[in-house]
Parts: sequence; C-alpha cells; structure tokens
Amino acid sequence: MIRRWLELKRKGVRIYGKCNVYRSAKLGWGVQVGCFSEIGDGVEIGDGVRIGAMCFIPAGVVIEKGAWIGPRVTFTNDRYPPAPREDWEQTTVEEGARLGAGVTVVCGVRIGRDALIGAGSVVTGNVPAGETWVGVPAKRMETGGN
Amino acid sequence: MIRRWLELKRKGVRIYGKCNVYRSAKLGWGVQVGCFSEIGDGVEIGDGVRIGAMCFIPAGVVIEKGAWIGPRVTFTNDRYPPAPREDWEQTTVEEGARLGAGVTVVCGVRIGRDALIGAGSVVTGNVPAGETWVGVPAKRMETGGN
Amino acid sequence: MIRRWLELKRKGVRIYGKCNVYRSAKLGWGVQVGCFSEIGDGVEIGDGVRIGAMCFIPAGVVIEKGAWIGPRVTFTNDRYPPAPREDWEQTTVEEGARLGAGVTVVCGVRIGRDALIGAGSVVTGNVPAGETWVGVPAKRMETGGN
Repeated sequence: MIRRWLELKRKGVRIYGKCNVYRSAKLGWGVQVGCFSEIGDGVEIGDGVRIGAMCFIPAGVVIEKGAWIGPRVTFTNDRYPPAPREDWEQTTVEEGARLGAGVTVVCGVRIGRDALIGAGSVVTGNVPAGETWVGVPAKRMETGGN
Repeated sequence: MIRRWLELKRKGVRIYGKCNVYRSAKLGWGVQVGCFSEIGDGVEIGDGVRIGAMCFIPAGVVIEKGAWIGPRVTFTNDRYPPAPREDWEQTTVEEGARLGAGVTVVCGVRIGRDALIGAGSVVTGNVPAGETWVGVPAKRMETGGN
Repeated sequence: MIRRWLELKRKGVRIYGKCNVYRSAKLGWGVQVGCFSEIGDGVEIGDGVRIGAMCFIPAGVVIEKGAWIGPRVTFTNDRYPPAPREDWEQTTVEEGARLGAGVTVVCGVRIGRDALIGAGSVVTGNVPAGETWVGVPAKRMETGGN
C-alpha cells in the first residue's frame, strides 16, 4: 500500500478526495483524478491525462497520453450485460482526445487522436481522429452547429 | 449496525467501497452494489441483483430478482420536484431486466421482465417485457438499428 | 475547519454523507446537499437550495435561492477543455429553477427563473424564465408533450 503510494507520488499523480483506484491500474506521470472516481482493474492511463470527478473507468479501458476526460464520464466493458469477462470489449481513447462532461462510452470503440466529444453524448461507435462528435447516439458535428 | 452488517453478510451481499445504503433498504440474497452508490429509504432489491458503481436509487424503487443495473444509473421518485413525499411515484424494474450504463429513469414507470435499456437512455414511460429501448427519450429499438 | 462547520450548522445547512464541499463555497441558509456531491471553489448557493446526490458543481457556478437541483446534475466551466482558468465561463441558475435528475449543463448559460429542465437533458444555451426544456440538446417543450 505504502509502496503504491510512493510510486504514485514519485510520478506526480494527484488523486483528489475519495477515489477507488485499483492497485492494478497503471497511471502515467502527472495523471490527475477528480474525487469520487473509480479506475478499475488493469486500466491504463497515459502521461498527463486529466480525469474529472465521478468518472467510472472499468477494466478494459486504455486512455493514451494527454487525453482529457471531463467529470462524470462513464466507460463500460460489457456490451450485452451481464457477460462473462472473456467477452468484455476493449475501449481506447487515443492521444489528446477530449471527452466532455457526462459522456457515456459504449465499449468496443476507439476514440481517435485529438477527437472531441460534446458534453452528455453517448458514443456507440468509433470516432475518427480530429473530429467532433455530439448527441445521443453521438454523430459527427457539422461545422457551425452546436 | 453490527446486526445489519451480519444480516447482509449472511445473505452474501457485497457492497464495494463507499456506499450510502439506508438501513431500511431491503437487499436480497447475493446482491452486489458498486462503489459510491446510494440506495435509499425502503428500496427493495431482489435476489441476485447486481448494481453498478455510482447508482442513485431513492425511496420508491423496487428492483426484482436477477435484474442488472449498470454503473451510474439514476432513478427518481418525484416527477414535478419538489413534491411532498405523498406525491412521489413508484418505479419497478421487473425480473431480469437490464439497464445499461448511465441510464436515467423518470419515476412512475415499470420496466418489464427481461427488457434491455441501452446505455445513456432516458426512460420516461413503461417498457414492455422483453423489448430493447434506447435514446432520449427512450424508444423501442427496431431490429438491426444502433 | 471547526469554524466552517459551526458556520454551516448555524445556517441550518445539511450535508448528507460524504461530499467534497470546498471551503470557499458560499452556502446560504438551509441549503441541503445529497451525498457524493462536489461543490467547488467559490461556488455560490442561495438560501433554501436543495442539491441532490452525486452533483458536480465546479467553480464559476451560481445557484440562486430556492432552486432545486436533482441528483447527478453536472455543471461545467470549460467550454473547450482544457482551457486556462481565465477562459472559464460562468453559469447561473436563477431563483426557483428546477433541474431534473442527470441533467448536464454546458457552461456559459443562464437558466431563467422558475424554468424546468427535464431529466437527462443537456442544456447548451440560455433557458428563458418559466419555460420547460427537455432533450439532448435541450429544446423548449411544446404543451402536452413529454
């Protein structure tokens, strides 16, 4: 426990308030996690990622470096629950992608580099790099819209 | 307090991390509750129900046996808030129904047996048994969609 | 710490369970806050406001007296995250407005007096006083709808 704490401290990880971070989760340098978040078994979080308060990030999620995860973002790992663990699907958030507040991500998708997901959206498929997606289910936002 | 703890232990109930489970809530055999969830006054949870992390289940909700409640599911009991307690409405999730991550359920509805609600949906009316509903507000999903 | 506690007690503030309320947040008389909520730096909450469980209310939000904030309501302060603090935008909920369960509010908006926002909605613009808005993004609800 102390070992884990020292490791996180050395890496400049900051966890605010009460969180439930599994010991098997890998957190990169300078990661920040807001209060009341859960980071599950074996989750990988890259360097410099910021995770808002009240996020739920279960086993099977990979968040690459520099991504920004707003408050209350919910990831999943089980498309047709309840499924046995071997049927869980991976979800990847690529470098620099940003997920707005309250976003829900259905498992098995890849959110591309520097993509932006609008607040409150539900992501149900892959999002190409650099695009902005919004809505339920999330769709590509045309220019000028909101 | 110890009595309550013994009762839950005897029933094989597992509550992960910090939760706020009212002492008046009735939890069946083998119920599992994820961390940072609240289960309110007099809520009834049937045998084998699994409740994800960060769920909000206030007074007036009944969840029948074998249902699966994903992370961050929000129930309500007050349709035109703030209403006095005698105007609160009941919500029932029938046996084996499954609610995806981040679902919000407006009170006064019944989610039928083995129904499936897609992640991020907002349920505003009754859902018939066995059907799949998605969206905001949730509607019946046609085959092949999503 | 004790001073803060005495101040809140004198004002009849009730904070249920574990919450993360910044010391710089200003809470009015008789404010109630549900468990697992976070109220951030300098947030202003008027007299008699009721805040549900699991709400996220960051710096830059003002909630006027008598407003009702349902469970799991998420406010934001950063429209194009991550932005430096000087670019954060203010959000105001005027007197007596009511926000249903699970609402997400994109920053920089004003929710007018006695307005009502339906459960699960995502508010992306100003809501005039007295109107009911629902959906993602929230739009004015026509009479008779749901």
